[in-house]
Amino acid sequence: MVPFAEPPRTVQSIALDAMGGDLGVSPLIEGAIQAVLHDGAAVVVVGGPAARQCLDDHSSEQGHLLVRQARAAGRLQFVDAADVVTMEDRPAAAVRRKKHSSMRVACDLVEAGQAAAVVSVGNSGAMMANASFVFGRLPRVVRPAIGTVLPSFAPHKRTLLVDAGANSSCEPLHLAQFGVLGSVYLEQAFGQSRPAVAVLSNGEEEHKGTPLTRAALALLKRTDLHVVGFCEGRDLNEGRVHVVVTDGFTGNVVLKAAEGVFSFMGRVIKETFEQGSVVDKLGGLLSKPGWARIKAELDPREFGAAPLLGLRRPAFIAHGRSDAHAVRCALRAARRFVDHDVSAHMAVAIERNAAVWTS
Amino acid sequence: MVPFAEPPRTVQSIALDAMGGDLGVSPLIEGAIQAVLHDGAAVVVVGGPAARQCLDDHSSEQGHLLVRQARAAGRLQFVDAADVVTMEDRPAAAVRRKKHSSMRVACDLVEAGQAAAVVSVGNSGAMMANASFVFGRLPRVVRPAIGTVLPSFAPHKRTLLVDAGANSSCEPLHLAQFGVLGSVYLEQAFGQSRPAVAVLSNGEEEHKGTPLTRAALALLKRTDLHVVGFCEGRDLNEGRVHVVVTDGFTGNVVLKAAEGVFSFMGRVIKETFEQGSVVDKLGGLLSKPGWARIKAELDPREFGAAPLLGLRRPAFIAHGRSDAHAVRCALRAARRFVDHDVSAHMAVAIERNAAVWTS
Repeated sequence: MVPFAEPPRTVQSIALDAMGGDLGVSPLIEGAIQAVLHDGAAVVVVGGPAARQCLDDHSSEQGHLLVRQARAAGRLQFVDAADVVTMEDRPAAAVRRKKHSSMRVACDLVEAGQAAAVVSVGNSGAMMANASFVFGRLPRVVRPAIGTVLPSFAPHKRTLLVDAGANSSCEPLHLAQFGVLGSVYLEQAFGQSRPAVAVLSNGEEEHKGTPLTRAALALLKRTDLHVVGFCEGRDLNEGRVHVVVTDGFTGNVVLKAAEGVFSFMGRVIKETFEQGSVVDKLGGLLSKPGWARIKAELDPREFGAAPLLGLRRPAFIAHGRSDAHAVRCALRAARRFVDHDVSAHMAVAIERNAAVWTS
Repeated sequence: MVPFAEPPRTVQSIALDAMGGDLGVSPLIEGAIQAVLHDGAAVVVVGGPAARQCLDDHSSEQGHLLVRQARAAGRLQFVDAADVVTMEDRPAAAVRRKKHSSMRVACDLVEAGQAAAVVSVGNSGAMMANASFVFGRLPRVVRPAIGTVLPSFAPHKRTLLVDAGANSSCEPLHLAQFGVLGSVYLEQAFGQSRPAVAVLSNGEEEHKGTPLTRAALALLKRTDLHVVGFCEGRDLNEGRVHVVVTDGFTGNVVLKAAEGVFSFMGRVIKETFEQGSVVDKLGGLLSKPGWARIKAELDPREFGAAPLLGLRRPAFIAHGRSDAHAVRCALRAARRFVDHDVSAHMAVAIERNAAVWTS
């Protein structure tokens, strides 16, 4: 069935790069423990002495019998790594010069069959470079991309933005393949059948856009995807389109602008109700349960883990400021990818549309 | 002082294209009347029979003695136009084939010295094309652009995004000139001294971005502007940067994505408090004064009128769904542009940096 000859895997551990996060090793270790204890995950933590110390501290704490049991049962392992990729490292240099980084070792574990997927909260460019180097691309895939899930109005529907930042310059073929990869991810990992695929543009009319977007749309129409045409920035949260393809420059700028508006609104709301009149403060107080529900619904941690699409092995990146819950969510997303064998389905879909890539 | 030979104008009327808005002629006429009665503006309304009828209805209503007086005093005039540019018209075709459209007639009035600036809520591409055709560009300006003001945290500071959609493909020189035009607009119309100019990119480091953004930044650094480097999508509302230059494709996508997030957040908040528990509803009720202040502070109508930067005459476009207050705000923005002679200051600044454009 799958056109690339990977043996079926029985290992379901997720390799977690415990270094390079903005908040230090604690949230990584705590997230791994939560995933193991509460989600039945198996995690291989890869890191330096600080990570090992943190894991040991958690294991020796009173009441953490369960952590010790998990370690004894091999569901929570630790692998040493001598080096760390920092946010300052250029991607290519990280691959060339830091062959013993936790990021690289975590990828190597997956390639060697000792883990089924890798998750990192570190330098996302370096992670893309390392994962691409170690795993390689799926056959016929020209450029792997980052997929980012956005909150949406449509119940039980997600909108996936691809590419969210891996490739700052793209060609039409890349964007068309992003559409295939994104569709398969939503179909297989989230059960969304026939996702609506659109090219992000500056207007819905077909004469809008750039030479890139128009050529990408023409190519997409030749695939077997459910292609709806161009969409605009305002469609990202509407739930009308499900896979939005764009170049990584535009994707990154749009995502960060959306994050900026969320945080701007949050700050304005907070200041208004905290610094206002007694009525404001009371209103703010009584609104708290509602706000808690909104926050839970829009929790970026639930959406935060982004798959690297188009590689032979599952790899996820999460936000550098991920807390323990975000790390747990990222591990869950990686497991879903593994459980549904998304890589193999992507390979099939890319192959099924081979005529589009070769013409 | 000014390097282009326009005689100083004494006419301070604003020509208002009353056709082509999504909400019909009423908000246009009402906005014009508000501007005349409450802001001391002089407005020339340009439109078809429906617009004339609407204006006559307002003049004949009981209590609208003031409107009749304004008309008699020439502060509220009407000029007939036989044609209308629709949202479906392609820009070039609108210029070529609709020479008697209200949009074109309004531009012609400015060029003929019968009005000092033009405002339209119609098809923005067609308005850019008509205004460019009728007014021409300032000397040395290669591409006129749309500037859009964004709400910001910094008190009394605005952030201007240029280009917000006029040019879907740009060259480095265009972006560098957008920086000059945007700086002058903020300095002259809003008194913001030495605005911080940045190029929108996918990271702050200088190796990030595309060949376009890197070359644009290099050019900008040769100007006499206060250039701070690259900025990211999340900086748009932070107030740290004041003029954000980008190509019109990215600008349009980012703006619409930000609008989408605002409306998404608004809908989620509304549904949460209206469909929730009694506490939610009470909290929602008591929060109303706070929300009203937030809405007023972030009112897109106050920010909504976008100048076309780089033309010889002042031209503004406002949102197609502008209501009367938005139209009044747009007329006010146009007047501010005229009062501060922004076009002349732009010409001077472009000329002062001539070495950058000619190398």
